[in-house]
Amino acid sequence: MKLRELGEFGLIDRIARQVSPAPGVMIGIGDDAAAVEPAAGRVTLVTSDMLTEGIHFDLAFSPPELLGRKSLAVNLSDIAAMGGNPRHFLLSLAIPSHLPVEFIDRFSGGLLALAGEFGVTLIGGDTCASREGLVISVTAMGEQLPHLVVSRGGARPGDLVFVTGTLGDSALGLRLLREGISSGPAVMKHLDPPPRVREGTALAGAGIPSAMIDVSDGLLADLGHILHLSGTGARIDLARIPLSAPCPPLPAGPGDDPYLLPLAGGEDYELLFTAPPARHGEAARLMEQLGTRLSVIGEITPSGGLQVVAGDGTPYRPASSGYNHFSSVN
Amino acid sequence: MKLRELGEFGLIDRIARQVSPAPGVMIGIGDDAAAVEPAAGRVTLVTSDMLTEGIHFDLAFSPPELLGRKSLAVNLSDIAAMGGNPRHFLLSLAIPSHLPVEFIDRFSGGLLALAGEFGVTLIGGDTCASREGLVISVTAMGEQLPHLVVSRGGARPGDLVFVTGTLGDSALGLRLLREGISSGPAVMKHLDPPPRVREGTALAGAGIPSAMIDVSDGLLADLGHILHLSGTGARIDLARIPLSAPCPPLPAGPGDDPYLLPLAGGEDYELLFTAPPARHGEAARLMEQLGTRLSVIGEITPSGGLQVVAGDGTPYRPASSGYNHFSSVN
Repeated sequence: MKLRELGEFGLIDRIARQVSPAPGVMIGIGDDAAAVEPAAGRVTLVTSDMLTEGIHFDLAFSPPELLGRKSLAVNLSDIAAMGGNPRHFLLSLAIPSHLPVEFIDRFSGGLLALAGEFGVTLIGGDTCASREGLVISVTAMGEQLPHLVVSRGGARPGDLVFVTGTLGDSALGLRLLREGISSGPAVMKHLDPPPRVREGTALAGAGIPSAMIDVSDGLLADLGHILHLSGTGARIDLARIPLSAPCPPLPAGPGDDPYLLPLAGGEDYELLFTAPPARHGEAARLMEQLGTRLSVIGEITPSGGLQVVAGDGTPYRPASSGYNHFSSVN
Repeated sequence: MKLRELGEFGLIDRIARQVSPAPGVMIGIGDDAAAVEPAAGRVTLVTSDMLTEGIHFDLAFSPPELLGRKSLAVNLSDIAAMGGNPRHFLLSLAIPSHLPVEFIDRFSGGLLALAGEFGVTLIGGDTCASREGLVISVTAMGEQLPHLVVSRGGARPGDLVFVTGTLGDSALGLRLLREGISSGPAVMKHLDPPPRVREGTALAGAGIPSAMIDVSDGLLADLGHILHLSGTGARIDLARIPLSAPCPPLPAGPGDDPYLLPLAGGEDYELLFTAPPARHGEAARLMEQLGTRLSVIGEITPSGGLQVVAGDGTPYRPASSGYNHFSSVN
């Protein structure tokens, strides 16, 4: 079926029918605005991410279901990086006329399945035509007690730098997709990154992180944001950066830095946080309970920018290509 | 300056510098998510509207400042239509590479000026590249006491149907713009529609509207939404539909319905609401205090769909062209 035949309201109805009533949602899809009841004593966390065809995704690589999941996942990841519990979200789509209704059905099916896994409810949004290319904008809302919200700006000298999971897989997956390989763990990490919601709320609930961010732009860039807002430096140990088993060393051709993807490849959506050394054991136990790998990759320094040192203690200079944001940190 | 030289973070900083701290905003622009404190005892209202180049706006017609104002205004209008006080918003932009930074400066200048007029604060969003065409997505958040929130579904037989301002001007303005006329009240109503926030909160605060919506799709379509959700019909008197003085009768050429624009022209962003006849005087006084015209255009009926009657009481059948949503109401 063509979207033109279904119409905007038909499409909205089609999506709305898949959404169940949820506690706290006074008015959901289908009015001028949604109305939700904030939990007493909590602040509301809110974030928006926009994904555009040809920039953030390629419909040749991304099955609609997984694109739907990822569109929500990147927003849940932002709520998780604040230590928040995601509760509600809005979905806006600008849809080119050539996309069949079946595409939107599969997209919204994937998105709503992920929403169900994390107990978040679709409460509104917008659908409209696009002259060229699919554009997806999701706004996610969450909540947390004010004193448990984790900003990017709280890192202190002496804090350890932690990261969940492994780094570089998503960027490797994208490279593999471009080479025609469409399966495997790295490819799946790129197409269907798991948002670290349980990890973020567990850590924040225990008051562990002094600063936290999700790794969307790449380790160096995202750690740079923490350092910039915290007014500190950091020293990162190259040998401690967690790499996944299925992520083999890349061929070190001329100009090809084997650490390019783990250091600067984006979209891993792992949590990068800082905490005092005394909290290390507790953080490790919490992550172990969730079955999530946790690594200490360095520590916060009073100043000195972001230094990366090799296993032998010598300074490591990453290849300049791909480090758009790095130069402003050092 | 080119956006490429400024970069994403440079652009965000450039916009963020123009935003002042605001009460209730614990964390604003620049973290993974914003954190805001909901007012005690109130529900949070939230809405998203997406505007795409070539569909919702034409950069040949829309000065950047006014496009910025309108991008926010259409969202404030949605909060107003719920009877809410808008407080915060997020702005996401997918920007084609050819747009100069000066365009974004003028766009955000207009948007933030309107935000200042209504006391709403920019707290976050996203900026990214667009392969083709500017895409704007704004999410606005507001608040209201639960019992004062006005949905679309509360109209009751015997209620009067009210509308603020005048109808058809925006669609006329668009027609004039396409003919090369770029000034005058109708053109300005299209490019810079005033959101009826003060009107919406005054009416809701007094508990007057039984149902409310803003006129974005056109009078017949939007009244149709109220009727559909309220399970009622309505009779509208053609002679009572408010037209602006500067809106002359259109040449009634073959197939050209002179009531096409007031009945089906969208984007007027006036408030359309229903209320019991006993509240008419109070509504009129409130709108008079705000200097806003208020008209009664008909009444809610138990059933019978949406009937439009001419001055002599005979049924009026609108020309079919342009009434996409009308056929599903009758």
